[in-house]
Amino acid sequence: MPAPAEGARSDRTGSTRRQFLLGGAVAGVGAAAAIGVDYALNRQDTPAPTPTTPMNGDEVVPFFGVHQAGIDTPAQAHGLFLGLDLLATTDREGLTRLLRILTDDAARLTQGTPALADSEPELAMAPARLTVTFGFGPGLVARAAGTGPSWLAPLPAFTVDRLQPEFSDGDLLLQIAGDDPLTVAHAARMLLKDTRSFTSLRWSQNGFRRAYGTERPGTTMRNLFGQVDGTTNPLPGTKGFDAVVWSDDGWLAGGTGAVIRRIRMDLDKWDRLDRSGREASVGRNLVNGAPLTGQKEFDEPDFAATTAIGFPVIPQFAHIRRARGEDGEQIFRRAYNYDERPAGSSVSESGLIFVSFQADVDRQFTPMQRRLDELDLLNEWTTPIGSAVFAVPPGCREGGFIGETLLA
Amino acid sequence: MPAPAEGARSDRTGSTRRQFLLGGAVAGVGAAAAIGVDYALNRQDTPAPTPTTPMNGDEVVPFFGVHQAGIDTPAQAHGLFLGLDLLATTDREGLTRLLRILTDDAARLTQGTPALADSEPELAMAPARLTVTFGFGPGLVARAAGTGPSWLAPLPAFTVDRLQPEFSDGDLLLQIAGDDPLTVAHAARMLLKDTRSFTSLRWSQNGFRRAYGTERPGTTMRNLFGQVDGTTNPLPGTKGFDAVVWSDDGWLAGGTGAVIRRIRMDLDKWDRLDRSGREASVGRNLVNGAPLTGQKEFDEPDFAATTAIGFPVIPQFAHIRRARGEDGEQIFRRAYNYDERPAGSSVSESGLIFVSFQADVDRQFTPMQRRLDELDLLNEWTTPIGSAVFAVPPGCREGGFIGETLLA
Ligand code: HEM
Ligand code: HEM
Repeated sequence: MPAPAEGARSDRTGSTRRQFLLGGAVAGVGAAAAIGVDYALNRQDTPAPTPTTPMNGDEVVPFFGVHQAGIDTPAQAHGLFLGLDLLATTDREGLTRLLRILTDDAARLTQGTPALADSEPELAMAPARLTVTFGFGPGLVARAAGTGPSWLAPLPAFTVDRLQPEFSDGDLLLQIAGDDPLTVAHAARMLLKDTRSFTSLRWSQNGFRRAYGTERPGTTMRNLFGQVDGTTNPLPGTKGFDAVVWSDDGWLAGGTGAVIRRIRMDLDKWDRLDRSGREASVGRNLVNGAPLTGQKEFDEPDFAATTAIGFPVIPQFAHIRRARGEDGEQIFRRAYNYDERPAGSSVSESGLIFVSFQADVDRQFTPMQRRLDELDLLNEWTTPIGSAVFAVPPGCREGGFIGETLLA
Repeated sequence: MPAPAEGARSDRTGSTRRQFLLGGAVAGVGAAAAIGVDYALNRQDTPAPTPTTPMNGDEVVPFFGVHQAGIDTPAQAHGLFLGLDLLATTDREGLTRLLRILTDDAARLTQGTPALADSEPELAMAPARLTVTFGFGPGLVARAAGTGPSWLAPLPAFTVDRLQPEFSDGDLLLQIAGDDPLTVAHAARMLLKDTRSFTSLRWSQNGFRRAYGTERPGTTMRNLFGQVDGTTNPLPGTKGFDAVVWSDDGWLAGGTGAVIRRIRMDLDKWDRLDRSGREASVGRNLVNGAPLTGQKEFDEPDFAATTAIGFPVIPQFAHIRRARGEDGEQIFRRAYNYDERPAGSSVSESGLIFVSFQADVDRQFTPMQRRLDELDLLNEWTTPIGSAVFAVPPGCREGGFIGETLLA
């Protein structure tokens, strides 16, 4: 089992709204957080320093490195996913030129420096943890006259799928993520402008999590069902994470595989289900994400526990029971919510941009998705409407470019 | 002239990237900001405290009051604008019921409390300065058998307009704004669910500004042209602001008028213009928004200044010269950027959700828009594609409801 995410173990119990809100998510961020909690719990009684977060606009995530950024980076508030198709005229040489240009753009923009010929340089000055992560679809690898990993192909068809081509597949992925929406918009525009003579835009998906500063760093996100989503997830910086995520296969060594699935969540139908039904569907409670057999978010689920009359406490087809991978079958999830203009009489068009990283999609992701396809209570309220698989190449050094291991 | 916005006067000069970034926008927020600047300018030399911002998730804006919130509230990072139409079956009594329900929802949600029968109560717990502001279109006032202000009607047609019905008009406006996108999404859903048997959704527009924590509070926003946008604007809390914004007319007393125009900005075309052309089109520079006749953002433009060969320094048809209102003709602007999935070969579908508040739309807004329609260099790159006018009723006390002055 990979270790649970950092910053989310706490022995506090209690039932004030504040504690409810903070959940267990305050330990592990040190003294400042502790001050924040004491203050919060005692607001009426004791004046205490206001909890603070560092100003965030200037924060940079290094671009160059063994791995690309945006994978083990604590997830930023905004994630924009762009799926591009190579134009017929973009040959291997053109592809190399494209990736050199985009690498240069990303290396600058993520550091708070305008891109070359940046048309709005002032919009590049507040990186706010901007990252740009590149992924290669099967078509790009073919164009490079390279050989991709065997899993680099559309996923097998699942019975739950209702895939729309406008959210599926693509030759080149740009994952542009940052804590500031204006910075993300500007970076997307600069990058897209430089792709113009090489690619066309196939799809674009805009997602969000909690804003920077809303909750303490390390708090597990919530999705639009109100669920704590991301609890059981390998922890960046651990050996478990490295084993799950990083490939050591040929030109992909130091890279990983990305699965991006757009999954509609039927909030109207979800609303008609009562709270205990909701909790049963996943096997965790809604208040703090604890397993139905535990108290706190990171308590280990007891899948063997039964009720007085002998039923499993965590239902047989609960999402976490069905999703839990055998050894070697874990994935790293880094999803974003989406919420768009509803059509017709519906009041929501919402869901999850499910994003997972894993070294080997066939071995780690597909068996899990197959199990969920067969039976998962959550399927009642969720529908995959887009799907794409990318090989995410390793990072590069200054002077190099993303994709050089494939193209050089 | 209304006073310029707070927090943006500084005597610093210099040319480091950091100063460039901070511009003049650091004075007026006190010692913490000063520390931030020193730290930033000397990062290499002197370790100094990291500039911080207070945690923001728990911050609440009071709901009850003389005026509705969301007008003189410092603009939050995310603004969602919903235009609703009353169903034919919603009579005066139904309308009253609807507004009572929505008032109750808004009063709770903005304070970080779940709405009644909130289906995802956990998503309501981090208000992050959430505000909900209601506006009434002509159809709603008619349904209430009331008499609206004379200006409550679609604006006169302007030659620059290319209006699309799907972004125009409507009976009821909900402006839902907050610093956290998940909180805004949840509030929108709760409110929309409760409108379901009374209204249909006509349009929805999702906008953003800088994230909380990216820049110091009080920094003027930038739009997607990269311009500092909002410099000359009445300052909330001043007599000038009160005179511009609050109506004293009948049931609208304590309320105001809202104009919401969706204005496409042609970034591709803007890119082809050089920097001095861009600056000339508005009459201000791009680096810090100073007028072409000054150094700092809040320097007073000198419209009489001429160049050596006798041309005006601020061109005759520059946006700020044409927009500047005669006495009594000011408006309060509170715009949001939008950036959406581009169609076809364009790489951007972007613009401004132009939002202005003024006591009398006919007297304050329309003459200005008429002047800009006749001649404004900026028209070359901007196109209004949506337009709506609402009467924004006053606030209410606990136990009352928004709209009671019209309906009671
Ligand atoms: C909209 C669709 C989905 C929703 C709303 C959802 C929600 C959740 C929630 C609430 C949890 C429990 C907390 C946690 O550990 O994160 C969870 C766990 C998990 N989900 Fe999902 N999920 C969705 C789709 C998927 C998909 C498509 C996969 C992979 C094919 C997946 C894999 C997992 C895994 C591996 C876990 C951890 C299980 C364990 O405890 O070992 N989920 N999901
Ligand atoms: C996308 C369209 C627009 C853009 C990009 C834009 C941009 C700007 C910019 C950069 C400034 C200078 C800085 C400032 O004082 O805010 C400005 C000022 C101003 N704009 Fe606009 N604007 C747009 C549309 C409008 C419209 C439709 C109106 C009203 C009908 C308007 C009214 C004003 C006013 C009153 C000022 C202040 C002028 C003064 O200095 O007295 N703008 N605008």
